[in-house]
Amino acid sequence: MNTKTYQLLEDYMLSCMEDSAHDKEHIYRVLYTAAEIAQTEKDVDYDILITSCLLHDIGRSEQFKDPSLSHALVGGDKAHAFLIGHGFTEAFAERVRECIQAHSYRKGTPPQSVEAKILFDADKIDASGTVGIARTLIYCGQVGRPLYSLLPDGNISSGKGDEIPSFFQEYKYKLESLYSRFYTRRGTEIAKERQAAAIQFYENIFREVCQTYTTGAELLINHIEPDL
Amino acid sequence: MNTKTYQLLEDYMLSCMEDSAHDKEHIYRVLYTAAEIAQTEKDVDYDILITSCLLHDIGRSEQFKDPSLSHALVGGDKAHAFLIGHGFTEAFAERVRECIQAHSYRKGTPPQSVEAKILFDADKIDASGTVGIARTLIYCGQVGRPLYSLLPDGNISSGKGDEIPSFFQEYKYKLESLYSRFYTRRGTEIAKERQAAAIQFYENIFREVCQTYTTGAELLINHIEPDL
Repeated sequence: MNTKTYQLLEDYMLSCMEDSAHDKEHIYRVLYTAAEIAQTEKDVDYDILITSCLLHDIGRSEQFKDPSLSHALVGGDKAHAFLIGHGFTEAFAERVRECIQAHSYRKGTPPQSVEAKILFDADKIDASGTVGIARTLIYCGQVGRPLYSLLPDGNISSGKGDEIPSFFQEYKYKLESLYSRFYTRRGTEIAKERQAAAIQFYENIFREVCQTYTTGAELLINHIEPDL
Repeated sequence: MNTKTYQLLEDYMLSCMEDSAHDKEHIYRVLYTAAEIAQTEKDVDYDILITSCLLHDIGRSEQFKDPSLSHALVGGDKAHAFLIGHGFTEAFAERVRECIQAHSYRKGTPPQSVEAKILFDADKIDASGTVGIARTLIYCGQVGRPLYSLLPDGNISSGKGDEIPSFFQEYKYKLESLYSRFYTRRGTEIAKERQAAAIQFYENIFREVCQTYTTGAELLINHIEPDL
């Protein structure tokens, strides 16, 4: 790929996520992580990989406006149309669409090509470790989700089995278990290197908030007289 | 304080922050932490303390709409007016106003009364440790701030001396140094217990993102040919 093509793709990506500083940072981290993973994989087509990484989340705003849509499916189609419109071959545009449509954690078909597997892993790595923790908390801020839910007894729920969305719920539902779901060797390694820091954060914050509630709520009761 | 009065104050607090799950959680944590700190302080008026804790952030939405306002000053005046309007004495309403107006980290007068010092410390403790990290990240999501800024050389800034707001900037500007600014013995202790976990998180995430940028960006250059 030459610099001009890279800039064309980068500009299109940026135009699709004008208002989201976080999404932009995420794209570059996925691209850089993919470059690292690709080093230890065979027969990687770097043009397909770079294009797929740059464009993999361009369907995000459509999914944000209509949560029934899959940003992977929308993004794959948008990328295909953009590439055809800018003189790339049908075969190239189709391979990029496959990569993008297979990158979603929750929806879509599993990745088949080596480039699709690398994109999938690089994207998942950005949900691992403390970066994954930070992105989840930022998302909670964006959509107004709380840190945790309370159990009927007034104690803080660990998040496990919660029905109400919160940071703790998302940690238990998605972040805690993502470390075993990688397709590439280097992807698995990077995620494992980061796992302990994510666990540590969750355990620390769960302990902090539980201590506050348990100690404080008990003490407070002594200073509030029940109505007779 | 009786249960009826507590509920009156709690309902007013909730009505002032209808749309913010995070702010509500913060109020209860501050209240519970204040109850813990108060145990080891002398001559605490629990009615003043509980009222001040419950109402300390009721000026937040005014500051959010007009950032030139101080939520501590607005909140103190709102609390005073509410209390007078509900039959509390002028002396009580005035002491609560003093506590609320002195609780702000960046603006307002330093706390003088023991209740004001406890509220100040309890509020600051909720900015310490991993809870402080999480609240800052959620705030970044709410106002659209990025995780970090890039230096002119393309590397990630640690946040120190940054002019552009980001999570790393806020960590370096506020979170890193707040551990020495407490008024009560127990407040200082709780904050110190939490400090290591906050430092650990910052160091982990800074290492994760720097590794991604340094390794990946260098590798990527090999696959993008410069324009001739």
